[in-house]
Amino acid sequence: MYQEKGAIMAERLDKQFDFLREIDKEKLIGRQTYLANGERKENDAEHAWHMAIMTILLSEYANEEIDVLKTITMLLIHDLVEIDAGDTYAYDEEGKKTQAIREAKAAERIYGLLPEDQGRKLHELWLEFEAQKTPEAKFARTMDCLQPLMLNAATEGKSWLEHGVKLSQVLGRNAHTAEGSRELWEYAREHMIEPNVKAGRIRDDVSNE
Amino acid sequence: MYQEKGAIMAERLDKQFDFLREIDKEKLIGRQTYLANGERKENDAEHAWHMAIMTILLSEYANEEIDVLKTITMLLIHDLVEIDAGDTYAYDEEGKKTQAIREAKAAERIYGLLPEDQGRKLHELWLEFEAQKTPEAKFARTMDCLQPLMLNAATEGKSWLEHGVKLSQVLGRNAHTAEGSRELWEYAREHMIEPNVKAGRIRDDVSNE
Repeated sequence: MYQEKGAIMAERLDKQFDFLREIDKEKLIGRQTYLANGERKENDAEHAWHMAIMTILLSEYANEEIDVLKTITMLLIHDLVEIDAGDTYAYDEEGKKTQAIREAKAAERIYGLLPEDQGRKLHELWLEFEAQKTPEAKFARTMDCLQPLMLNAATEGKSWLEHGVKLSQVLGRNAHTAEGSRELWEYAREHMIEPNVKAGRIRDDVSNE
Repeated sequence: MYQEKGAIMAERLDKQFDFLREIDKEKLIGRQTYLANGERKENDAEHAWHMAIMTILLSEYANEEIDVLKTITMLLIHDLVEIDAGDTYAYDEEGKKTQAIREAKAAERIYGLLPEDQGRKLHELWLEFEAQKTPEAKFARTMDCLQPLMLNAATEGKSWLEHGVKLSQVLGRNAHTAEGSRELWEYAREHMIEPNVKAGRIRDDVSNE
């Protein structure tokens, strides 16, 4: 009896550690955002870590009350699909066409490594993030937009300049940022976007039209 | 009135974003542990991200019930002191002598960037981790030991071999791992340590004495 229970637990642990070893690959998935000191670009794991701490400190500005643990969990795992599907840059219109299919297949495989109950829970949480209906999903997206905005501003727009990013693109990318937190979006607009438009690091294609 | 409230909030947000930009440096603090594929060593932010997900999946094995959000928060922030104090390798006996003082000063400065209430809360959480009295602190330490153990085993002991690590050191480093979870320690011993002792990747200085 004890042995049987032990064997079942060992099998569960094997699956959990298979998953935990597999997701180590997230540390190798590069993003387009530079670190605050501009030294190199960051990766998905670093991005997720940063957003989790942001959520802890900034949840007080959420439009609707959020479950912080649920939001953090969502953010910690929502980029795992990129292990198979790769990172799709926010302004890569071609890549975005096939992104949904590539990521759905990836979620199937990666969350499928876990024991069924845990895999289903994380998979559903990822779908909840993608669907953008709940307060947690909305706030998580706000973090997902705000974190690179903060870093881009900290580097004086290094990534914006490299890609020749226009204000309409930044505003398009942030079309829903206020849905998670009006206050944070307001602050980001005033402190991160506007000064960089003035400084010519984001090309102003809006006020001239 | 509205303007005054707005100014107070902007000041609070300034402090929160000062902190959030400052902690970006954690991504530049290298550890001795290699990624699972052995390609390069990981950094503190990646390590923290990995442990947070481990906590979500493995909290079911905690000896005592834990508050998962509290434990994750502890793990996400507990290495921030290394921004000033640097990483002290688990087997660096010289560095460990001054570690406590260096880290206490660092905590003062880094958590001091935040609004007072949030800074105090995170500082206390870090002290709670260091004191190792609560179930959350004990489980967090178990994660902190288990995560590099998992990666070292995944790389077939690359870091152990480079440092000529002995079994007595691994067991010493893990003297308290079972206090967070007996089941996880048992599993780690059987699946991560013993096979690597047998394979000669951890030098067995215990059974020969």
